[in-house]
Amino acid sequence: MNTQPRHHLNASTLAQRYAQVRATTLALAAPLSEADCQVQSMLDASPTKWHLAHVTWFFETFILERFEPGFRPFHPAFRMLFNSYYQGVGDQHPRAQRGMITRPGLAEVKAWRAQVDARIDALLRHTSNDELNTLLELGLQHEQQHQELLLTDLKHLLAMNPLNPAYHPQWPLSSVVAAPMDWVAFPGGTAHMGHTGDGFAFDNESPRHELLLPPHALATRPVTHGEWLAFMDDGGYRDPRWWMAAGWDWVRTHQLEAPLYWRRDGDPARQGGWTNFTLHGRVPIDPRTPVVHISWFEADAYARWHAEQTSEPIRLPTEAEWEHAAQTLGTALHTQGNFLESGALHPMPLSRSGAGLQQMGGDVWEWTASAYLPYPGYRPWAGAVGEYNGKFMVNQMVLRGGSCATPREHIRASYRNFFPTDARWQFSGLRLARDA
Amino acid sequence: MNTQPRHHLNASTLAQRYAQVRATTLALAAPLSEADCQVQSMLDASPTKWHLAHVTWFFETFILERFEPGFRPFHPAFRMLFNSYYQGVGDQHPRAQRGMITRPGLAEVKAWRAQVDARIDALLRHTSNDELNTLLELGLQHEQQHQELLLTDLKHLLAMNPLNPAYHPQWPLSSVVAAPMDWVAFPGGTAHMGHTGDGFAFDNESPRHELLLPPHALATRPVTHGEWLAFMDDGGYRDPRWWMAAGWDWVRTHQLEAPLYWRRDGDPARQGGWTNFTLHGRVPIDPRTPVVHISWFEADAYARWHAEQTSEPIRLPTEAEWEHAAQTLGTALHTQGNFLESGALHPMPLSRSGAGLQQMGGDVWEWTASAYLPYPGYRPWAGAVGEYNGKFMVNQMVLRGGSCATPREHIRASYRNFFPTDARWQFSGLRLARDA
Amino acid sequence: MNTQPRHHLNASTLAQRYAQVRATTLALAAPLSEADCQVQSMLDASPTKWHLAHVTWFFETFILERFEPGFRPFHPAFRMLFNSYYQGVGDQHPRAQRGMITRPGLAEVKAWRAQVDARIDALLRHTSNDELNTLLELGLQHEQQHQELLLTDLKHLLAMNPLNPAYHPQWPLSSVVAAPMDWVAFPGGTAHMGHTGDGFAFDNESPRHELLLPPHALATRPVTHGEWLAFMDDGGYRDPRWWMAAGWDWVRTHQLEAPLYWRRDGDPARQGGWTNFTLHGRVPIDPRTPVVHISWFEADAYARWHAEQTSEPIRLPTEAEWEHAAQTLGTALHTQGNFLESGALHPMPLSRSGAGLQQMGGDVWEWTASAYLPYPGYRPWAGAVGEYNGKFMVNQMVLRGGSCATPREHIRASYRNFFPTDARWQFSGLRLARDA
Amino acid sequence: MNTQPRHHLNASTLAQRYAQVRATTLALAAPLSEADCQVQSMLDASPTKWHLAHVTWFFETFILERFEPGFRPFHPAFRMLFNSYYQGVGDQHPRAQRGMITRPGLAEVKAWRAQVDARIDALLRHTSNDELNTLLELGLQHEQQHQELLLTDLKHLLAMNPLNPAYHPQWPLSSVVAAPMDWVAFPGGTAHMGHTGDGFAFDNESPRHELLLPPHALATRPVTHGEWLAFMDDGGYRDPRWWMAAGWDWVRTHQLEAPLYWRRDGDPARQGGWTNFTLHGRVPIDPRTPVVHISWFEADAYARWHAEQTSEPIRLPTEAEWEHAAQTLGTALHTQGNFLESGALHPMPLSRSGAGLQQMGGDVWEWTASAYLPYPGYRPWAGAVGEYNGKFMVNQMVLRGGSCATPREHIRASYRNFFPTDARWQFSGLRLARDA
Repeated sequence: MNTQPRHHLNASTLAQRYAQVRATTLALAAPLSEADCQVQSMLDASPTKWHLAHVTWFFETFILERFEPGFRPFHPAFRMLFNSYYQGVGDQHPRAQRGMITRPGLAEVKAWRAQVDARIDALLRHTSNDELNTLLELGLQHEQQHQELLLTDLKHLLAMNPLNPAYHPQWPLSSVVAAPMDWVAFPGGTAHMGHTGDGFAFDNESPRHELLLPPHALATRPVTHGEWLAFMDDGGYRDPRWWMAAGWDWVRTHQLEAPLYWRRDGDPARQGGWTNFTLHGRVPIDPRTPVVHISWFEADAYARWHAEQTSEPIRLPTEAEWEHAAQTLGTALHTQGNFLESGALHPMPLSRSGAGLQQMGGDVWEWTASAYLPYPGYRPWAGAVGEYNGKFMVNQMVLRGGSCATPREHIRASYRNFFPTDARWQFSGLRLARDA
Repeated sequence: MNTQPRHHLNASTLAQRYAQVRATTLALAAPLSEADCQVQSMLDASPTKWHLAHVTWFFETFILERFEPGFRPFHPAFRMLFNSYYQGVGDQHPRAQRGMITRPGLAEVKAWRAQVDARIDALLRHTSNDELNTLLELGLQHEQQHQELLLTDLKHLLAMNPLNPAYHPQWPLSSVVAAPMDWVAFPGGTAHMGHTGDGFAFDNESPRHELLLPPHALATRPVTHGEWLAFMDDGGYRDPRWWMAAGWDWVRTHQLEAPLYWRRDGDPARQGGWTNFTLHGRVPIDPRTPVVHISWFEADAYARWHAEQTSEPIRLPTEAEWEHAAQTLGTALHTQGNFLESGALHPMPLSRSGAGLQQMGGDVWEWTASAYLPYPGYRPWAGAVGEYNGKFMVNQMVLRGGSCATPREHIRASYRNFFPTDARWQFSGLRLARDA
Repeated sequence: MNTQPRHHLNASTLAQRYAQVRATTLALAAPLSEADCQVQSMLDASPTKWHLAHVTWFFETFILERFEPGFRPFHPAFRMLFNSYYQGVGDQHPRAQRGMITRPGLAEVKAWRAQVDARIDALLRHTSNDELNTLLELGLQHEQQHQELLLTDLKHLLAMNPLNPAYHPQWPLSSVVAAPMDWVAFPGGTAHMGHTGDGFAFDNESPRHELLLPPHALATRPVTHGEWLAFMDDGGYRDPRWWMAAGWDWVRTHQLEAPLYWRRDGDPARQGGWTNFTLHGRVPIDPRTPVVHISWFEADAYARWHAEQTSEPIRLPTEAEWEHAAQTLGTALHTQGNFLESGALHPMPLSRSGAGLQQMGGDVWEWTASAYLPYPGYRPWAGAVGEYNGKFMVNQMVLRGGSCATPREHIRASYRNFFPTDARWQFSGLRLARDA
Repeated sequence: MNTQPRHHLNASTLAQRYAQVRATTLALAAPLSEADCQVQSMLDASPTKWHLAHVTWFFETFILERFEPGFRPFHPAFRMLFNSYYQGVGDQHPRAQRGMITRPGLAEVKAWRAQVDARIDALLRHTSNDELNTLLELGLQHEQQHQELLLTDLKHLLAMNPLNPAYHPQWPLSSVVAAPMDWVAFPGGTAHMGHTGDGFAFDNESPRHELLLPPHALATRPVTHGEWLAFMDDGGYRDPRWWMAAGWDWVRTHQLEAPLYWRRDGDPARQGGWTNFTLHGRVPIDPRTPVVHISWFEADAYARWHAEQTSEPIRLPTEAEWEHAAQTLGTALHTQGNFLESGALHPMPLSRSGAGLQQMGGDVWEWTASAYLPYPGYRPWAGAVGEYNGKFMVNQMVLRGGSCATPREHIRASYRNFFPTDARWQFSGLRLARDA
């Protein structure tokens, strides 16, 4: 099995970074009541309290249990109670019953967080080695992933409330206009994908390897809500020609006619009366913003419909094509788009007219045509942390680029996210590709 | 349709009684966190917060909306949000999603309660008529029913927590010994059942009517945990001879081997290691106490097994037999057993050696052999409150006598409770009967 | 436990009756292909081949195995393969997989029938005793029940075929007119129910016992398809006021708007275009015929709707009321209605104008307001045949009177049929009752 | 959209080939009763009668309807009744109810076959063009696929019968010994995959394209039943380390401990008592034969377990690696293994000791590590036949090489089969690969 990459980080830098990431998580939970933090709204989602506890479990189990002299857990039962899926650590509380655990209460979980933070801080004062630092960095990356999940799971919960409660009341959209979509061509040929050298990366981004790309083009920006309404108006959800067979079954079984969180309860004169639930409450659909909360089935159907409309060989990009393009962006991957830090918590319209690829990073995760599979020669990390990625490499599709709920520094050109083809509660959208 | 009985209650007495019942409900919720009050642990159960809100909804909707001058609801959406099943009142929030409503929070629901209490108090100061008084009494009886459900639903939630949290930590059982079971004979012949004259009763207790009883006998006390262990030790859960066909399917589908909340995680030297979850936490099985948390299927199987053991025509009592016997008890129906007011919140052993029927009231609801059906000439009340009872008169069995979670004054000889044959989360037990 | 009634039947009479009943079953299967006989169309139904085999299993297992000298089964595995639910006989092939058994084929099952018939015939030539005779009669009654089930199960299968195949092509309805419904009054008071003395009866019809009836009236005839259309036209399937809570859930879950087998694919000018699948193929609804293929939920809802329309205390009859009335009919119970022997295989319009109760026997099973429960002092028969009735006495409602698929001689005034409240594939209808 | 490849086949050759393929299908159904041909044993399987009808539907709908002068269908309803999933052709009878169609009977379906065969024969006598010939070839390839499905679906049905009926009674295995497994190394580098030029291929095998392969090795032969028993004996089905997360859920949900059709009902001294259901009845496991009826989850888990046992980078091959290796085999792809024509209908042990790749073709379909996705630049065929492959390109894994139930000439190096990760009823096995 694989050995994790070793990072040579300065200990005080790491402690500082630890404090910042942990504080961000608490800040995200700050506007929530104990009740908001308690409920699990569906099997795929977890309660906020569970997120707060589980990321703490990660540090206590994988770092303190190993490196802290005279280690004693905060509460012996928490090892089982807040284990997500690590078979190597032992039993897990059933996923479907995470919302049933009303005790420990939110205050006790926060006390646990504070105690673990103090113990980590103490540990880092006198201990520093590559293995500890690497596991700590992994724990922080893990916590950033749960920051995004905390928001998407919370959104799913709030959206079930007929009172349409807001997480943050202000509505931040400015009055910019979406730029017309254009294409950026790539000649194809030999390319590389996978993590390159420095900095943290998950095991699923390795090994870096060579591959062949066909000539192709990528759209300059994601598909917008306005464009999606055209798909809907053209009967997109009622025509089996656009859908995978499994997607068509899914549409009919659930009688779907729009993305997740849409309702037809608004002013009929505005976007046909369609409204959207956001973390700022329910609002009219804004046609300028990137479409969000769609499944892979929907993204794929849209691409096929668009190909027919334009008589062009349009499709979803592969993850190799996406990564190859992102490699050309440099720092623009982190500056063009709208990440967690903006506080918008909703995909934003393109704010500038510049040519070339826009919003590859942030705003919406972009579904690709690629199944989530191991790279050639892939090895998971050794030990229980090796259960992080590899065991999910089947029956899922890759998404790229991060969203408006992803911490900016968490994203890389090589970063791979993955969800099943019917998942919609993430901030997922799409960007089109075209055969040359 | 029927007209509700009119009660001539003194207005200040009624106001006092209102204040007392409402305070009891709040007191039951007092030991709970907001998280405890939020969660719905299964479809059949409701969150404590929902119970607190729904009983308040009853007063606002059925009384204030009708009698309060210049009525304005506390919040317009609560009419739908906290309607349980009254089609006549309009839409209902889906039952399965009661636990998803994190807002209004617990504090806001309590504020609603306080406001409604003040408005009812004001109303009663200047208004008094039979219809108002009758609806108010119905609302109080309704709230008492929800006091019991609040406890049984909460118990179901806490029991899912592997930490076995206690609602009240003290364990109240004294060291009395269960009296041997004996029989009380009844000659049969003409009898009457149904509510007689004065005082409140639900529509399902009417009309009072005559019927014929066969000669029979009733057991002096409910079946105990110790007796139930003998049934289990004899392979009771593994032998189809004792079970209804539907009951046997149920046992095998769920792989049952004991009543609800039992686990085999205790000292093997004590009752085979079986423990019980109670509102005081997890404790060893006490063989002296009435068996509780059994379904009708289990009660019925036990009776058939016991008949075979003793070669006697033993069975469950009919509700007519039960009510006929209870009529002979007078005030003893309310004094022998252990009701909500005792604070035990668990069935207690028989504390005295007296002859005759014991513990008919309180401790455990007693399953009967009777399906829950309308009495001859039954009419539901007029209006939306007519949906209270009649529309549930199918596919349920009758229980009688109240439990350790029932307010004492709530019980009558004619009182009919009802649950499906597989329900176990109520404080349900059994008393045997015998053909003469 | 109970001992079965002993019948003193002449041996050659019994042999003759045996031959006749067995031949009838084969005749019912004669128009069917091997494929028709093979398929199980839903969990509640069984394949024709299974019916042919199971009734034969009954004779081989309960009679030949016990009385035949040197008994050897036709095929040792058939004892398990064709056991329906008799735990006392041992394992059963899973009910849901009855249609999977393509071997033995139909010819082999028929060969088994022939062999068992010959062995029974031989047995009866030299052996006769009360126990044998009683078990034989039970086997014949059992086979008659399966004759009806064979037809209703087959109808369910054929109705799933979009080609609407006919079992018998001729359509037998004559052009009579349905008589207007009238009432027959009964004064109430002491009555008796249960089997009286002579002739065969199932254990569930005993013991005969006394009971009190309220004054009431019964409708002269069943509700017709024409009257049912009025209920539908008045929005009966869309108004929760008429339905039990569980019934309303059932209607909405399955989006029901008509009885089973109805489709709106006919001439819109005739009965709103509604057609009916019958054993003669798909035909327009005939408003003169008794409504059929309704559940208890529907029968009960119709009665409540009709009570509201007429402002009269209308409801379903209890089984005691029904049996009391049937006792007054004498032989008319068997002569007024249309049984299996007529070959119509569909309820027929009332063919004469006579006053008084009509069609109590035959045409449609009539749902009652009574849950299927044991009579006071009920004991099942001893041994495995004791599993015949008693273990189903929960969560079912009683139907009375037989149908167009019931052999005429199979019906008695005391005969109790029973099905769950959502079952519709039997020839089930309703007759109204009224409080005095 | 794509245009299908045009084949320049001699008309009389095509007619001859048509007659041969059609006769083979009938021959496969010859040993079956009408009941055997009627039943659908699970949602994924279809009745033999449906297979016989559906392949005929293909010729009538896609060829006769288009090319036959004065076309009239055999029966107008069959166009809907036997359409599998072609939305472009119109409605389809629900897949789950294929077994409910007892009429048309088997004889009528065979009559339809004969009539369509005669009409095709007549058509080919006077009409020949590329489009017709290509569609006819597609129809024959389609029918060959259904020949295999007919056998695997039938096997699933017969295996549900506790009598273990045989399709063909003789048991053909000879006494050869399985050769030890060895590795064949491939250096990697640029390779090509996809159909090359001549002969028929499905659209999913195009376009042929270039790609990069890493250095790797393939096992000389598939994994055997004996090797699989070692995996089981080592607790393979009880250890989460070997399984994908979704696979581990699947194992526990279904409580699996062996491949499909295995039972532990044999002589404990032989292979631990494990037996196997085959088309020749139930037989002891033969350790020399390739393991069969495993899911992708099982194949993948075995590879991971084997990697751990050997400390080698062992895994499943990608489909590119498999195809690259198969290209080197030439005619040996069709001569080494055991196809439908052998009549064995079960994977056979390796019959010779030769070095190099063995049994790449035939015996068992080999699961690969590749998701079933479109090749770069893939276009489905134009028209309704374009629904053949493309719309299934999600959530499935690729299998290669054909099986003991595949017609020999049906297989190519570029042939792609695909099934979901939990499918086991095909003749599916595995061959290991290794990173260099």
